[in-house]
Amino acid sequence: MRAYQAAAMLTGVSEEFVARVEADLQRLFPADGDGRLLQAARHLVFAGGRRMRVRLVAACGALTGAGEDDLAAVAATTELIHAASLLHDDVVDGGTLRRGRTTANVAFGSPAAVLSGDWVLAHAMLLLERRPDVVFGAVRCVAEMSEAAIREIEGRGTLARGLTAWRGVAEGKTGALFGWAAHATAICGGAREMAPGFERFGRHLGVAFQLADDISDLVGSTGKDRFSDLRSGTPSYPVLLAAADDADFASRVARLWDAPQIDEAEVAVLGQRLLATGMRERSLAVLDDELEAALASLGPSAGAFAEAFRALAAVFVRPLAGA
Amino acid sequence: MRAYQAAAMLTGVSEEFVARVEADLQRLFPADGDGRLLQAARHLVFAGGRRMRVRLVAACGALTGAGEDDLAAVAATTELIHAASLLHDDVVDGGTLRRGRTTANVAFGSPAAVLSGDWVLAHAMLLLERRPDVVFGAVRCVAEMSEAAIREIEGRGTLARGLTAWRGVAEGKTGALFGWAAHATAICGGAREMAPGFERFGRHLGVAFQLADDISDLVGSTGKDRFSDLRSGTPSYPVLLAAADDADFASRVARLWDAPQIDEAEVAVLGQRLLATGMRERSLAVLDDELEAALASLGPSAGAFAEAFRALAAVFVRPLAGA
Repeated sequence: MRAYQAAAMLTGVSEEFVARVEADLQRLFPADGDGRLLQAARHLVFAGGRRMRVRLVAACGALTGAGEDDLAAVAATTELIHAASLLHDDVVDGGTLRRGRTTANVAFGSPAAVLSGDWVLAHAMLLLERRPDVVFGAVRCVAEMSEAAIREIEGRGTLARGLTAWRGVAEGKTGALFGWAAHATAICGGAREMAPGFERFGRHLGVAFQLADDISDLVGSTGKDRFSDLRSGTPSYPVLLAAADDADFASRVARLWDAPQIDEAEVAVLGQRLLATGMRERSLAVLDDELEAALASLGPSAGAFAEAFRALAAVFVRPLAGA
Repeated sequence: MRAYQAAAMLTGVSEEFVARVEADLQRLFPADGDGRLLQAARHLVFAGGRRMRVRLVAACGALTGAGEDDLAAVAATTELIHAASLLHDDVVDGGTLRRGRTTANVAFGSPAAVLSGDWVLAHAMLLLERRPDVVFGAVRCVAEMSEAAIREIEGRGTLARGLTAWRGVAEGKTGALFGWAAHATAICGGAREMAPGFERFGRHLGVAFQLADDISDLVGSTGKDRFSDLRSGTPSYPVLLAAADDADFASRVARLWDAPQIDEAEVAVLGQRLLATGMRERSLAVLDDELEAALASLGPSAGAFAEAFRALAAVFVRPLAGA
């Protein structure tokens, strides 16, 4: 049994549910279908991710008592909003690789990637036709994700945005969608009074995921080159934390990013300094705080879920950070 | 009094309504607001168009008896879906000019244009929070517009797609949104039985607009260089019509588009041949057929509206075609 299956059992996330949503998505975007929009969509929708958003919906749905068909629609919608945002992010970044695979803009062209993003987003919303009472929350989420994405782009290559702005971007990029998904399970379960707490739960959890992603760059756990954030001018959480503490570090990073060409030796020096000054541990502590804040947001409804959630986090979130 | 004001009076389109929607849009995207997404959005939303979609909603709403607040929301939504599609089209086309103005991708960068398109689209849908019963139609329209846009791109530089495919693209690009807008006014007016006919009305009208746009390229009425469709490898309606009739014309166009560089002298010769063989008049006749088909779609509800609509078309649609 794989670790995540054990954790899933603890939290009541059914692998049958995950498989059902997978089958729903396959029916919506069939492998034998025609057209470039479909191909570009499949490239992102079936990229081999672990369907974290589907599992989140399943876990929350177990607490709110929502019906399976509603939960499956919400889960598929979150995966499609996520896929659409990646299609557009890759165009926006001019990226060529995402997690080791060619990006859709390279494989199918930027026009197909842009238009497929729109098309996938439309399909995401159409899945909610059975639950019009949650669709506008999903739409608001798309607006927030776009705002976070542009702020992230505008914050590249500078330390100016600081830790508070970092949090805003992390929440907008990842937390908003997690928050909507959790909120929607409460609405679908007829537990409207639980919805605001569930929304906060999802937002904290999303920030924890972004922290894990930033921390992972210090240990290279996802197969990326280590210290790629320093190399690419990305003001990650550990970098911003170190810069807030240490003016010399901050000015060296600023010089690194201002230079016409990246100085690989300086990247290695500054990266080792992040590790030596405990930025990984301090960021991990913040991650743990976010996880606890997520749980606290659920209030009394967390109940017996609390330990299971910690187990799930131990399997899912902290390992992303290489912890 | 300008001609379109006279036509508006005939059809009952109130300039006060158009001004109200304009003010609603200004409030939504204020001139003194911050941020690159907003700036890129304003660039397209307030580009000085004649608000044809707003007028369409007003005219249809006068027949269905929908309330003004609902109509204003539907009208603003159509303008925003249109603006979002233009933001993405300009990125997709790599365009630098649209109707004589710098495109948003050039003025604000492609990232801002892509993300602003998503953001504007989200705002378009949020305006329908007061009418959740029409939002999924709008979402379906976005999916259809994306499909038409990719088919249009894939049909460039070749005559292979033919007239039927041309019509599908025209309907998807322009007719779907006109159709949704007209359909939504029926729903908002509590006249569900009128909705399918209104949808067909809008779709025919949208195709008529696309025809007018294609025809205008033969006469240069919108300030574009004449014959730009021949120059850019765009299989416009008149070009496809001539190619279907005349194998020699078709093979010369194919050679023109296959050549590594465009032959301006050949563009002029083939353009003049389109005019000399009556392709402008024949396309205009098809345009008039679409306008009549639009009216016929309304069935008995058209009534006294028919003459007024013809007057409106005479002022709005045919002049776009330089007729």
